[in-house]
Amino acid sequence: MTLIDGKATAATIKAEIAERVKEIVAAGNKRPHLAAILVGHDGGSETYVANKVKACEVCGFKSTLIRFEDTVSEDELLSKVRELNEDADVDGFIVQLPLPKQISEQKVIETIDYRKDVDGFHPINVGRMAIGLPCFISATPKGIIELLKRYEVPTSGKKCVVLGRSNIVGKPMAQLMMQKCYGDSTVTVCHSHSATLKQECREADIIIAAIGRPDFVTADMVKEGACVIDVGTTRVPDNTKKKGFRLNGDVKFDEVAPKCSFITPVPGGVGPMTICMLMQNTLLAGEKAIYK
Amino acid sequence: MTLIDGKATAATIKAEIAERVKEIVAAGNKRPHLAAILVGHDGGSETYVANKVKACEVCGFKSTLIRFEDTVSEDELLSKVRELNEDADVDGFIVQLPLPKQISEQKVIETIDYRKDVDGFHPINVGRMAIGLPCFISATPKGIIELLKRYEVPTSGKKCVVLGRSNIVGKPMAQLMMQKCYGDSTVTVCHSHSATLKQECREADIIIAAIGRPDFVTADMVKEGACVIDVGTTRVPDNTKKKGFRLNGDVKFDEVAPKCSFITPVPGGVGPMTICMLMQNTLLAGEKAIYK
Repeated sequence: MTLIDGKATAATIKAEIAERVKEIVAAGNKRPHLAAILVGHDGGSETYVANKVKACEVCGFKSTLIRFEDTVSEDELLSKVRELNEDADVDGFIVQLPLPKQISEQKVIETIDYRKDVDGFHPINVGRMAIGLPCFISATPKGIIELLKRYEVPTSGKKCVVLGRSNIVGKPMAQLMMQKCYGDSTVTVCHSHSATLKQECREADIIIAAIGRPDFVTADMVKEGACVIDVGTTRVPDNTKKKGFRLNGDVKFDEVAPKCSFITPVPGGVGPMTICMLMQNTLLAGEKAIYK
Repeated sequence: MTLIDGKATAATIKAEIAERVKEIVAAGNKRPHLAAILVGHDGGSETYVANKVKACEVCGFKSTLIRFEDTVSEDELLSKVRELNEDADVDGFIVQLPLPKQISEQKVIETIDYRKDVDGFHPINVGRMAIGLPCFISATPKGIIELLKRYEVPTSGKKCVVLGRSNIVGKPMAQLMMQKCYGDSTVTVCHSHSATLKQECREADIIIAAIGRPDFVTADMVKEGACVIDVGTTRVPDNTKKKGFRLNGDVKFDEVAPKCSFITPVPGGVGPMTICMLMQNTLLAGEKAIYK
């Protein structure tokens, strides 16, 4: 069984990005610049954004954090988005989700210039990904593809079961895994209404669990030799932890791991790759590698 | 076994559309207007476009056919597209594919105003469909969803196998079938590299074959009581036909049909629904039901 070390892989990739940034700057070009908008003071969002800013430093990017109180109006937020769209120094930017109720997340996403949409949430990027055109691919599915590639997990022609059909993980994951240039797999998407979910899992060479239910995937659902990717990060109360909770994956790791050819742990598997792929998208934006 | 009659269903829907158009016009509003650009004289394209124009008449739409010789330059075609984008009288338009080699189909598609893209090929419509937002859904997958609905084929929680991963059928079909508001099925996409294709088919409650290989789906691949939707329309030489060919589906109809709960014939199944759904999209465009 090979433990897929997302933390180490992310560190390697960030080092590769930092090298590339050095070259860019040495050639007299602009340092890539990521801006992040953070609304309110949600603990999770604060942590994510702080980690993104930190990752920018590691990669040698310029970063800008823009804060709003959670009383901000939609108009105010949208005009900041438009300002960033126009700002030639900003290569890419994100608006940390979730947003307060008075603001339409979809409207915010669609207002972002798709050429700066390093989160890959704009319908143009979603659509281009589906068709197989160059685009910003959202970070979590992109990170999983990268892990499979770097660990040389065989995917072509293999049966891949994706658990969950969310817009940010399940659906794009399925699309990437079925495409010839990425997974080239036979892809099955299961969800809460799937009658044959367990059977599908038992036949899978690769399981990608993104269903948000702690310990949902048990040993009896996994074929001997399967590769299991755990995207779950549910906060479960845990008094032994300083923060009072732990991150729990969708996979019952202890009993599933011994059956696997490859498995990702939680934390330290898919999680660290997500921010790292945001960095890679920022680099692509800075280099104008996808859109001019 | 129920034979799904696409021809009759399409006729019913077109009659429904015609009724709605009468109401629109009686209320003093503009008649919906579809324009079609046809480049060159390819036999298949000529037939498709002629059928689309005919369907417009049946529905009470205004239609405009714009012809170019196959020597037209990309610039010339793109400027006509831009002209139609600006023409307030045109509610929706299509550019019949394929296009001659000197023209980038993707560039043409992306130049069409997505609010008039009744073919649903623009990345914005593709992306919005993937996310589950209102949009123009491309005609063939939309027609299949409509047939399943009108024939009350159970789909929720069922296993649906899509054969083929093309951008215009396989991929959007999979996306619709997995979404809660459409199929709500467990969806598996198989393709030429799928090692377990036959097994997947044997377990399927619904098979949607869009692989373009005549008679590919045989009786041994179909579970008793399955619903089989045949999207294949390969032209096979046939001297008994006036045109010298017949349209052959992806399903070996004679041996598969007896095992099915529902099946679509070729021709007369999915085919007639495609143009009919283009009409429905044109109606939606005329009513500004999706985009203002």
